[in-house]
Amino acid sequence: MPSIGIGLIGTGYMGKCHALAWNAVGPVFGDCPIVRLVHLADVDATLANQKAAAFGFSRSTGNWRDLLSDPDVEVISITAPNAFHPEMAIEALNAGKHIWCEKPMAPKFADALAMREAARKSGRAAVLGYNYIQNPMVRQIEKFLAEDAIGEVNHVRIEMDEDFMADPAEFFYWKSDASSGYGALDDFAVHPLSLIRMLFGRIASVTTDMARPYSDRPVRGGGRRAVETHDIASVLFRLEQGASGVLMTNRAAWGRKGRLALQVFGSKGSIVYDQERMNEVQIYRTGTAAGEAGYTSILAAPSHPPYGMFVPAPGHGLGFNDLKVIECRHLLARIAGEPAHVIDFEKGVDIERAVHAMAAAHEKRGWVDIEYD
Amino acid sequence: MPSIGIGLIGTGYMGKCHALAWNAVGPVFGDCPIVRLVHLADVDATLANQKAAAFGFSRSTGNWRDLLSDPDVEVISITAPNAFHPEMAIEALNAGKHIWCEKPMAPKFADALAMREAARKSGRAAVLGYNYIQNPMVRQIEKFLAEDAIGEVNHVRIEMDEDFMADPAEFFYWKSDASSGYGALDDFAVHPLSLIRMLFGRIASVTTDMARPYSDRPVRGGGRRAVETHDIASVLFRLEQGASGVLMTNRAAWGRKGRLALQVFGSKGSIVYDQERMNEVQIYRTGTAAGEAGYTSILAAPSHPPYGMFVPAPGHGLGFNDLKVIECRHLLARIAGEPAHVIDFEKGVDIERAVHAMAAAHEKRGWVDIEYD
Amino acid sequence: MPSIGIGLIGTGYMGKCHALAWNAVGPVFGDCPIVRLVHLADVDATLANQKAAAFGFSRSTGNWRDLLSDPDVEVISITAPNAFHPEMAIEALNAGKHIWCEKPMAPKFADALAMREAARKSGRAAVLGYNYIQNPMVRQIEKFLAEDAIGEVNHVRIEMDEDFMADPAEFFYWKSDASSGYGALDDFAVHPLSLIRMLFGRIASVTTDMARPYSDRPVRGGGRRAVETHDIASVLFRLEQGASGVLMTNRAAWGRKGRLALQVFGSKGSIVYDQERMNEVQIYRTGTAAGEAGYTSILAAPSHPPYGMFVPAPGHGLGFNDLKVIECRHLLARIAGEPAHVIDFEKGVDIERAVHAMAAAHEKRGWVDIEYD
Amino acid sequence: MPSIGIGLIGTGYMGKCHALAWNAVGPVFGDCPIVRLVHLADVDATLANQKAAAFGFSRSTGNWRDLLSDPDVEVISITAPNAFHPEMAIEALNAGKHIWCEKPMAPKFADALAMREAARKSGRAAVLGYNYIQNPMVRQIEKFLAEDAIGEVNHVRIEMDEDFMADPAEFFYWKSDASSGYGALDDFAVHPLSLIRMLFGRIASVTTDMARPYSDRPVRGGGRRAVETHDIASVLFRLEQGASGVLMTNRAAWGRKGRLALQVFGSKGSIVYDQERMNEVQIYRTGTAAGEAGYTSILAAPSHPPYGMFVPAPGHGLGFNDLKVIECRHLLARIAGEPAHVIDFEKGVDIERAVHAMAAAHEKRGWVDIEYD
Repeated sequence: MPSIGIGLIGTGYMGKCHALAWNAVGPVFGDCPIVRLVHLADVDATLANQKAAAFGFSRSTGNWRDLLSDPDVEVISITAPNAFHPEMAIEALNAGKHIWCEKPMAPKFADALAMREAARKSGRAAVLGYNYIQNPMVRQIEKFLAEDAIGEVNHVRIEMDEDFMADPAEFFYWKSDASSGYGALDDFAVHPLSLIRMLFGRIASVTTDMARPYSDRPVRGGGRRAVETHDIASVLFRLEQGASGVLMTNRAAWGRKGRLALQVFGSKGSIVYDQERMNEVQIYRTGTAAGEAGYTSILAAPSHPPYGMFVPAPGHGLGFNDLKVIECRHLLARIAGEPAHVIDFEKGVDIERAVHAMAAAHEKRGWVDIEYD
Repeated sequence: MPSIGIGLIGTGYMGKCHALAWNAVGPVFGDCPIVRLVHLADVDATLANQKAAAFGFSRSTGNWRDLLSDPDVEVISITAPNAFHPEMAIEALNAGKHIWCEKPMAPKFADALAMREAARKSGRAAVLGYNYIQNPMVRQIEKFLAEDAIGEVNHVRIEMDEDFMADPAEFFYWKSDASSGYGALDDFAVHPLSLIRMLFGRIASVTTDMARPYSDRPVRGGGRRAVETHDIASVLFRLEQGASGVLMTNRAAWGRKGRLALQVFGSKGSIVYDQERMNEVQIYRTGTAAGEAGYTSILAAPSHPPYGMFVPAPGHGLGFNDLKVIECRHLLARIAGEPAHVIDFEKGVDIERAVHAMAAAHEKRGWVDIEYD
Repeated sequence: MPSIGIGLIGTGYMGKCHALAWNAVGPVFGDCPIVRLVHLADVDATLANQKAAAFGFSRSTGNWRDLLSDPDVEVISITAPNAFHPEMAIEALNAGKHIWCEKPMAPKFADALAMREAARKSGRAAVLGYNYIQNPMVRQIEKFLAEDAIGEVNHVRIEMDEDFMADPAEFFYWKSDASSGYGALDDFAVHPLSLIRMLFGRIASVTTDMARPYSDRPVRGGGRRAVETHDIASVLFRLEQGASGVLMTNRAAWGRKGRLALQVFGSKGSIVYDQERMNEVQIYRTGTAAGEAGYTSILAAPSHPPYGMFVPAPGHGLGFNDLKVIECRHLLARIAGEPAHVIDFEKGVDIERAVHAMAAAHEKRGWVDIEYD
Repeated sequence: MPSIGIGLIGTGYMGKCHALAWNAVGPVFGDCPIVRLVHLADVDATLANQKAAAFGFSRSTGNWRDLLSDPDVEVISITAPNAFHPEMAIEALNAGKHIWCEKPMAPKFADALAMREAARKSGRAAVLGYNYIQNPMVRQIEKFLAEDAIGEVNHVRIEMDEDFMADPAEFFYWKSDASSGYGALDDFAVHPLSLIRMLFGRIASVTTDMARPYSDRPVRGGGRRAVETHDIASVLFRLEQGASGVLMTNRAAWGRKGRLALQVFGSKGSIVYDQERMNEVQIYRTGTAAGEAGYTSILAAPSHPPYGMFVPAPGHGLGFNDLKVIECRHLLARIAGEPAHVIDFEKGVDIERAVHAMAAAHEKRGWVDIEYD
């Protein structure tokens, strides 16, 4: 049985999430190469060592470049802060490694392009961590659309909201610093953009309003500092296929914890979905008898692959981490040259392009057409 | 006990709704003047006669101007098509009648201004039929905001969607004709605008995207005709108080029947409401113990006045028509010179102004600042 | 146009509810005799006088028997406390009046039988106030069952819960006194029993557990008194048609305000309904494509008669009081000798019989078979 | 760092679930002994070999007794059919192994007692697979109860429903054979019983109605065979602490996929939970301001341990398999002699006793008091 050697950079939220996925992908799917957890890097070498034991990696290091020179490492998970993605991804690709990189690609668009170029040259798999597209219920939406269940899509609304920036009494930290990016738009809106990209294709034009719920924040040690990023972004858009849409994102939305809510309207029906109830999708279809029309709420089940690889009974529920396991399986498929449902660096650049166009539209106070290459 | 004489123009959807309200307002509230149902007008005199019997009116006519000269009529309900509102309202005010006029005021802004002018001159009550603001749960939202329950409001989203224009196989009819107005924006968006006006104040600036889900429709008898109005309108806005917001409306939204969904985000919490479940409102507040935070879903109850005038038991539910009864009670208060929670022709002009600004922003493909007088 | 003269006994919760219905039934349906509000009785003559003005009755009295001798009164609404129902209903029927009597019929079963006997002899309409069966969504359930939409029903669960007895600090009042009846069972469970009777037919056998959440309550003025009734009743039952079922009722259920929740399981699907969201019904049906099965949530609409008599637009919502208007229309149909969907004194006795059998089963600590005549 | 050697019997639904848990427990919690996957048994040796590779076990066998003699195996997961539990568990305990055994313990009560006896003698950990008690939201309910958030519990309702036996056209298979047990009661009702046991303590007395939705089923090859088990069971019960309750279970409930719905009523509030939305729990509490009372819907979050070990962000959702990982962690705690939240063979016998008492009550058509030892 073939095997594959794994390197992992980072041990935080997403580092652990990748580690869990690498541990689970074999037992869940049963049809992958044997996963060898080879080398774990964290800037804190002691932490790297400790986490290597917990996660099951054989070796650890405080220097991520050690993974590039480790011949046992064939694929590298990159979960370091966004600013490090470009150099890590490019050097790793140049070293012949496959890449599984967390989203978004990079704070600067030029870097995203360079990453894509490196991926093209290397011929290696370069996949981004857009896990929500892997939800079997989102795949079911895709299936509904492919089967023309709601007719031609003419309007889309998508919201992504959490409340980790909602407390005005929280101290200023790097997410409010301009160097971190635009704010909700790139920190966050890339998730709804990944759904749009996979379900409806590319965005043609946008106009944007970004807003700051709090103009400044207290600074640890005293005083206040002006907030430089925008925790709220609202975007009107047109898809290349012609439909109009609205994208809304707010990382200061008290009460919202993992909301990623989609409404799709078509000529024969509509679809509603919310990641906070990630095991459900709702569809409304015309053609029912009088008095019998309504939204049908479908619970996740083995008839929504690959749900059944996790649980053979319907309605028992997948969790957030399971989506990463599915993503990991698709990454392995891509590495093996098989069909894979992923956002790679090609599609990733489309998303980054849309983000920067949205920010430009805010500056311009008008519409921006997006030019794809 | 004092009494008041009523005239009603129109016997359709809203005509009947007004008639039901006039019949119910006394028994429900028990503190109003005795309502005398005097005179009913419909362009179809036979229908007027038949409906007068059903609704309990003493007299009927095929000529609405007969109501103006009827000395027993003190207040006139105007439920004729929007295009007739200006002449009916202005002549009635000039004749010394109080006015209860369905929304919106008029297709043309100049007419709305003339109506306001007539109301100012007459000194009569001139109230518009924005019934959703009367929902006790909407009043509870108002109360929450007044009590600072969610802190300073910094973001608002509001959606109004129905599906009566959703079927592309429906024949072209007047709602797709440019003479009917912009489409969803004025036919529809005035309802969310009424909520915004009452809960948050005036809108300062807007940018808009209006869209046509179907470019043309079949014509009865053969052929197809281009659709001239827009069934979808999406608007980014800023309130005068500073918050950003999004207003979305779609009258071709399959599956949505009476959706008027509001999300309000503040510095200490958030509020969620949907007219399709009009007896519920949800609030999220900070300050709970760890692990206990969440949206509290409040069911309509006697503690939400004037719910208790309808049912003394909580959770038993008001209906759409009950809102009109409440509106009617406020109209009577306004006529009596008492405090009244209404959208009168003053506030109504603010709403019309916002509608026209939104349409202008669509044309301009940019932001429009709204100038109020 | 024919007319009908109305008498009303009682001006409390249900008295007002009847008054509202009598005012609305003509304008809503437009096809009834003209309703003349003739005579209003309340034990408090002053209150009767005041309410007569508010509700629109011509005359008032402190003596309900005045209504029996009033030749203008053709039908009498009885909304006095349950203990008065027998003498009022029997005397009124004997006086040739039609009866619209609030539920339940009487605290003692013998009295219910006597009421039925009086109705039989009189040939008059004798209809009970079981309004929940009038909900268009409940009628839709009936339609689904008649059309075999979920196959043969094999299991039913029904819950009725409110929280008006939930506070243990509330003073002892008559609802805790044995003279008021069993407690939740007759005060309350008659509503679910009315649904069972109309949807599934008669109950064959029962076993019951009644419980007291609080053994005693404070007495106004000092001391405590033992609670004699049972605020909770749970019943296992078998229907005559063979299905098993569970009936649960709790009037001390904190958080429940008007819950009347039904689950119906059949060989081809299931139906779920809750009165707290009275404008919705959910159905699950087999026969869908893989991955597309789920509960469809249907919103009340004109396709659920007589919803459209209230509002021509779907999803706009009826309220609790509207159900009484529908009930009133059916009463008028019964009086006119037309088909009517009502629980009359015949079906009412079936319900009372079930209640007393349930109480007997609690005493016996075993199953009781119900013998119908 | 210490390690622990694992054996697993069975590779079906629960076998895989255990395997996934053993793979994940270390990476998720980071504070356990290193898990060595030693030996996998399945009656089909080829399958055992194949699954050993997929799940990461070092050795495999077609004879489960090989695990007993394997010195590297310290704890054995038993996921074979229920009828095999007694001999496997007893022999394994006698061989000095710790046991993680799927529920229920055994078809016959005497066998359950023998299993408990073996566990007592061995001094080994003997833990049952009641995973729903591990849901952080169920733990939150436990916390609410411990903190007196809803006062004294006086009524409980619990439902467990799925639809895997709902299709009457399905062929007769072993679940309808009397040798498999009672039907829904033991196949299923043990899950709600596990929640009752952990949240409220032991059940004192019961009365039961078991029912067959379908009297017979087609047999593969022709003809029909009478169904011997009961797919529906409804139980009235009293807890030792005094509260009344209802337990309902139906494995022929079309539309229900993984419903495990709990309602808890207390003197100061109530709690509502449904496993189909396993990341939510609702609580209603008294003491709010007028007009502000309602159910608060809490989303799973790091403040509900050990949710945060899986995901550091709130509202992102755990899945069914994650509950097994938590259960596994508690098993390891029990093995280590640390406090553990588990249903061991002691509490397991309480549950089995309740199941058999319920079946006896059905036979007796009356109440049965449960005698615990």
